[in-house]
Amino acid sequence: MKKVPLLEIFGPTIQGEGMVIGQKTMFLRTGGCDYRCSWCDSAFTWDGSQKPDLMEAQEIVTQLEAKGGSLFSHVTISGGNPALHDGLGEVVRLLQEKGIQTAVETQGSFWKEWMTDIDEVTISPKPPSSGMQTNWEQLDTYIHRLKGRQKKQVSLKVVIFDETDLSYAAEVHERYPEVEMFLQTGNDEWSTAENQWLLTHLLNRYEWLVEQALHSERLNDVKVLPQLHTLLWGNKQGV
Amino acid sequence: MKKVPLLEIFGPTIQGEGMVIGQKTMFLRTGGCDYRCSWCDSAFTWDGSQKPDLMEAQEIVTQLEAKGGSLFSHVTISGGNPALHDGLGEVVRLLQEKGIQTAVETQGSFWKEWMTDIDEVTISPKPPSSGMQTNWEQLDTYIHRLKGRQKKQVSLKVVIFDETDLSYAAEVHERYPEVEMFLQTGNDEWSTAENQWLLTHLLNRYEWLVEQALHSERLNDVKVLPQLHTLLWGNKQGV
Ligand code: SF4
Ligand code: SF4
Repeated sequence: MKKVPLLEIFGPTIQGEGMVIGQKTMFLRTGGCDYRCSWCDSAFTWDGSQKPDLMEAQEIVTQLEAKGGSLFSHVTISGGNPALHDGLGEVVRLLQEKGIQTAVETQGSFWKEWMTDIDEVTISPKPPSSGMQTNWEQLDTYIHRLKGRQKKQVSLKVVIFDETDLSYAAEVHERYPEVEMFLQTGNDEWSTAENQWLLTHLLNRYEWLVEQALHSERLNDVKVLPQLHTLLWGNKQGV
Repeated sequence: MKKVPLLEIFGPTIQGEGMVIGQKTMFLRTGGCDYRCSWCDSAFTWDGSQKPDLMEAQEIVTQLEAKGGSLFSHVTISGGNPALHDGLGEVVRLLQEKGIQTAVETQGSFWKEWMTDIDEVTISPKPPSSGMQTNWEQLDTYIHRLKGRQKKQVSLKVVIFDETDLSYAAEVHERYPEVEMFLQTGNDEWSTAENQWLLTHLLNRYEWLVEQALHSERLNDVKVLPQLHTLLWGNKQGV
């Protein structure tokens, strides 16, 4: 039985981003990432500042139930990059047996077979501002494997910090026009505890991104979203 | 050719609510409503304060193109209750010929055959605080007609002002468990121009609604959303 390194189990709360924004859900946050994005807002999953617990699938499900009780029917797996961990396949299987829906987010750099069992997969390729490179052929294969599943969805989400990121997003959208596409404002102030200032700042960033998308013909069929949890709770971890 | 009474044609902008929240879209707002919700935030569509233009389908599409140019591929029809108007069928047909996606929102009190051609239908039954009554059998039929269409979606959205509204929403959700369900904070301060105050007020209301949903087992599989356009632009009309 392969163990999974976990940094957080929390909820129920609201999914603040992307294709199921607003969804009532529990969160699992796995440790470890193969990327080092310059603006990573969950660097604590890989920079050694927080120590993960190595847990077996059944133990993870038991903890989810201890925290969520009867108040959830949806679990979101986040990271780090969850696709590093084989052991999540068993977690997903156990949750499905209980009729619980699952969602995951990954940058698409590693493939795991359990990915095909997930109800809502968000692939978030990283734009130039992250300092990372996109392997396009790998991304092609990834998306191809997840498209056209029965009653299961896949979407793309690109976090945008500047105009170079925007044209990268347009390139992604043009390469996969049939995949639902989300643009999201990045949080470049993830260490401040000044919530009122942060709120105004984030809404200004969001308005900027909306304006950019509205004026770009390449971005006609996109959805532009903020991070709702950050608007509500600032930079607090575990909500 | 049946004419349609229109109050607003605007965009491109962002859909601020519901199932395609964040979507880049143009808006058509029709005049007239068979309801009189106590907290209606678009009462100007039916209270005589603004005069609609009676327009033919081709004229409407021409105006959309004049305003949106090449910067849109999605049109949202809002009201009032758009389902009062036969003439919208021709508008939807003309837009589809151009490959433009369409969305509509209605309370579900009137049926029109063109409803089945719409890509994303939001049905928003009105909770007790509105002062309106729900005809459940009518709603059953409405939803039945829209479910299971190929590549077209239907969702439910209930605006929540108080706890009575919340249990109404739970009742709706339990009656149609297979239909995607959105809870939305109502804007009870739609006349203020004090944007900073309004923002804090709306986020507090949204946090209240999130907390309510998180603690209700009847509301496990829902999405809880604010109105993004109000967070961005306050009560300004036509954005
Ligand atoms: S892929 Fe995600 S978790 Fe990994 S470094 Fe980038 S932002 Fe952080
Ligand atoms: S149904 Fe909509 S437009 Fe009609 S009165 Fe109610 S809130 Fe206003």
